[in-house]
Amino acid sequence: MRSNKAFELLVISVIIISALLIGVKTYPMPPLVERTIVILDWGITFFFMMEIFVRFLGEPEKKRFFHNGWNIFDTLIVVVSLIPIQDSELALIGRLVRIFRVLRMVSIIPELRTLLNSLMAAMPQLGYVLLMMFIIFYIYAAVGSTFFASINPDLWGDIAISMLTLFRVMTFEDWTDVMYETMAVYPFSWVFYLSFIFLSAFAFLNMIIGIVVNVLEEEHQKQAFEEAQAAGEPTLVELREEIRALGRLIEARQKVQQKV
Amino acid sequence: MRSNKAFELLVISVIIISALLIGVKTYPMPPLVERTIVILDWGITFFFMMEIFVRFLGEPEKKRFFHNGWNIFDTLIVVVSLIPIQDSELALIGRLVRIFRVLRMVSIIPELRTLLNSLMAAMPQLGYVLLMMFIIFYIYAAVGSTFFASINPDLWGDIAISMLTLFRVMTFEDWTDVMYETMAVYPFSWVFYLSFIFLSAFAFLNMIIGIVVNVLEEEHQKQAFEEAQAAGEPTLVELREEIRALGRLIEARQKVQQKV
Amino acid sequence: MRSNKAFELLVISVIIISALLIGVKTYPMPPLVERTIVILDWGITFFFMMEIFVRFLGEPEKKRFFHNGWNIFDTLIVVVSLIPIQDSELALIGRLVRIFRVLRMVSIIPELRTLLNSLMAAMPQLGYVLLMMFIIFYIYAAVGSTFFASINPDLWGDIAISMLTLFRVMTFEDWTDVMYETMAVYPFSWVFYLSFIFLSAFAFLNMIIGIVVNVLEEEHQKQAFEEAQAAGEPTLVELREEIRALGRLIEARQKVQQKV
Amino acid sequence: MRSNKAFELLVISVIIISALLIGVKTYPMPPLVERTIVILDWGITFFFMMEIFVRFLGEPEKKRFFHNGWNIFDTLIVVVSLIPIQDSELALIGRLVRIFRVLRMVSIIPELRTLLNSLMAAMPQLGYVLLMMFIIFYIYAAVGSTFFASINPDLWGDIAISMLTLFRVMTFEDWTDVMYETMAVYPFSWVFYLSFIFLSAFAFLNMIIGIVVNVLEEEHQKQAFEEAQAAGEPTLVELREEIRALGRLIEARQKVQQKV
Repeated sequence: MRSNKAFELLVISVIIISALLIGVKTYPMPPLVERTIVILDWGITFFFMMEIFVRFLGEPEKKRFFHNGWNIFDTLIVVVSLIPIQDSELALIGRLVRIFRVLRMVSIIPELRTLLNSLMAAMPQLGYVLLMMFIIFYIYAAVGSTFFASINPDLWGDIAISMLTLFRVMTFEDWTDVMYETMAVYPFSWVFYLSFIFLSAFAFLNMIIGIVVNVLEEEHQKQAFEEAQAAGEPTLVELREEIRALGRLIEARQKVQQKV
Repeated sequence: MRSNKAFELLVISVIIISALLIGVKTYPMPPLVERTIVILDWGITFFFMMEIFVRFLGEPEKKRFFHNGWNIFDTLIVVVSLIPIQDSELALIGRLVRIFRVLRMVSIIPELRTLLNSLMAAMPQLGYVLLMMFIIFYIYAAVGSTFFASINPDLWGDIAISMLTLFRVMTFEDWTDVMYETMAVYPFSWVFYLSFIFLSAFAFLNMIIGIVVNVLEEEHQKQAFEEAQAAGEPTLVELREEIRALGRLIEARQKVQQKV
Repeated sequence: MRSNKAFELLVISVIIISALLIGVKTYPMPPLVERTIVILDWGITFFFMMEIFVRFLGEPEKKRFFHNGWNIFDTLIVVVSLIPIQDSELALIGRLVRIFRVLRMVSIIPELRTLLNSLMAAMPQLGYVLLMMFIIFYIYAAVGSTFFASINPDLWGDIAISMLTLFRVMTFEDWTDVMYETMAVYPFSWVFYLSFIFLSAFAFLNMIIGIVVNVLEEEHQKQAFEEAQAAGEPTLVELREEIRALGRLIEARQKVQQKV
Repeated sequence: MRSNKAFELLVISVIIISALLIGVKTYPMPPLVERTIVILDWGITFFFMMEIFVRFLGEPEKKRFFHNGWNIFDTLIVVVSLIPIQDSELALIGRLVRIFRVLRMVSIIPELRTLLNSLMAAMPQLGYVLLMMFIIFYIYAAVGSTFFASINPDLWGDIAISMLTLFRVMTFEDWTDVMYETMAVYPFSWVFYLSFIFLSAFAFLNMIIGIVVNVLEEEHQKQAFEEAQAAGEPTLVELREEIRALGRLIEARQKVQQKV
């Protein structure tokens, strides 16, 4: 319906306004503007509350409404926005909740929702490669914190910090500084870093190739199916059937003539 | 025409000379060379003016000439080059205009023009992924400037600076320095950086795969079409038609014989 | 068998516990926890010993057991774990062996084993590209240590250190610092770095494209084969045979009628 | 021939020895070893001279020998190695020539030669993308040295240095340091850097996709051709011909019968 589309556009505009308010709030402002923002903010909260209410009424089966993850997400954000906050600690949480309103953009625009779903769908197939990478990280972190903890406890103090340091090495961020430091004590520790870089790069490459191959395969199948559908093109099996039908026709005539 | 080709080569040479002049001007020079350059520069401006005039005369419909974006670009550059500039502020703009002359290379060489067009053509399909990345950046920048603004205002002062800092983190440029600084206050802020890196890397990867799949698909279709055209190869549909024609032929004969 | 599956899950849980113990040990602990860990550690060693023993008994041909690389790996790790260690030097080796237990995860989970095998299978085809890259590195390292050794012996002192420095340049890690230092003496040494970056990037790109093409080809063949199998689709050769059989049928009839 | 293969292996071993000598020379050595190396070096030069001589004699047409680029390369290296050098400046060139001997590996091993040829073959198709990137670099370098030369002449002094700085920015190497410095004077100069990074990354991506598509297309055609050859599979055109031949056969019979 058109009114539905217009309503959607209105919701998107309100979300954009709420996103802009979040941005504006990070700049210093005169008190008047600040008060206007507070009022606008309450307006947005009220609008979102109304919008959820309308959607809730529009739902034929009331129970189903809260089976949708996005609906729960929207309701939670409105509820938390409504709580009056004075405590400075909680005020931060209030601001966070207002920031997460921008995520509603994803639930409103269908293209973004499908994009997110396709991102999610790619995750499980990566499961074992991610497990492999975690094992590589864990073993190297254990070795690293065993040998290098006394050299630089800030980088290799325990296994969690070591894994963070290894992630830094994997992104090539000042990794030679980390290496030169340990090479001063263990001159052959470059073997540790280079083997880690090669292994993780190789596993990473494998992951990317896996995704690309998967995507291409899906595209290929979809395409092949569409082409066959669109052109009404017969399969080779159907062609064989046609040829055999011809054969049967000729044989049938043979019998008729022989009887004659 | 050959004279057309020769004229094109002449224009390209003049553009290359103007590009070289721009480069030479960035080095300190004796006054004599400097004066020669000024004269050469006027010569180039005059040549470009002539060239546009010739092309304008060559155009059958004068109105159409200014519908072409490149023609407007060329005319603007010549016009601005002609304005005599004394003011030092405006002198910079004059220099900039002379630099943009090099871009005329793109409008003159057809291969570069098609390359630029194909770059432009790839943009719209990226629209939603870019929007998704912008939302990711915006939310993280809002969170970052909420929590870290007091730690380092140069990096997290407002939402615009925060987005620039996040782009820096995305390029892995000294991102650990940024992280270690905030980890001193919020020990768990590594979650912020790592989740951002994973999300943006994943969205970026998705974008690249999208482009690759698109390009491969187009190539595939073009290729399949060309192959079919070149070889005069029949489709499976045409083959089925031939087999059915055979069947009709045999049946027609049957009827003739039965009558006999 | 179900008992087999349950046993596998038990082994995986023990491996995960041993991995957690390794992680926990990198944190400072009260003496009581430390003693518990030592006892748990002995329990794990004992469990792994039992597990190998069970698997050894389960093997019909005892000789074959030690032909499997993973079995030798498992046995070695248990044997070294059993050696009582007091010496601090050897204690490190003892800790390393305990860390390598985590690798048993790969030998237990079949999906990880096939992943590792596929990684290994990709290596040989990269042989010549890797040799090419080694030659590029070797030549540049020789040139680098010839010219730059006196400028910074820490980076260019001998050919081994030079190759490490070149790897650093290849990862773009503070490569301009390395370059600016030598450009102060040899102003044209940027040619050395830029040509190295282009050559190594090009060889690297070639390697990746090689892998991708290989993977896609394998996928393509596997897919084509599966499709043909699944659909029972005839090949074009078979179709031709059917058409020719029709021709023979018609010709045979012709001879019969001519005789009549 | 077998003797040929053995000779090739001998040449490869001598090249490897010469490569090792180059590496060894970068370490400090006792005088005795140094003298041994000098003798070995003369031995290698003599061996290479002999090898070229043998190959020259083996060539049926003497003129053709020097049409091969690798032969000229080999001869030049031997000739320069023979010149007795005392001058320290020239001594460096002597060492360089000895380093380039390692490149003979490429000319001896056929797989490396084909790899190099395929790398070379990929270059021309990149021509226009490289030209585009050069234009992007040139324009940004001109703009950069116009505005930023006074801020940091070491980075933006003239157009050549600016291009080197831009290459540095493109590799993300401390690019924020470069940016923050100019942002202190021109607060909006981040537009310059970000637009450059996006443009160059986009052109670079386009280049890689171009190469990948090219390689895949070639593979695809080679594969399709091989499949068709290997299986003796008929094309669809040939199948149509077979069906039409059947049609002619039936029609021919019809005429025969009508005459009867």
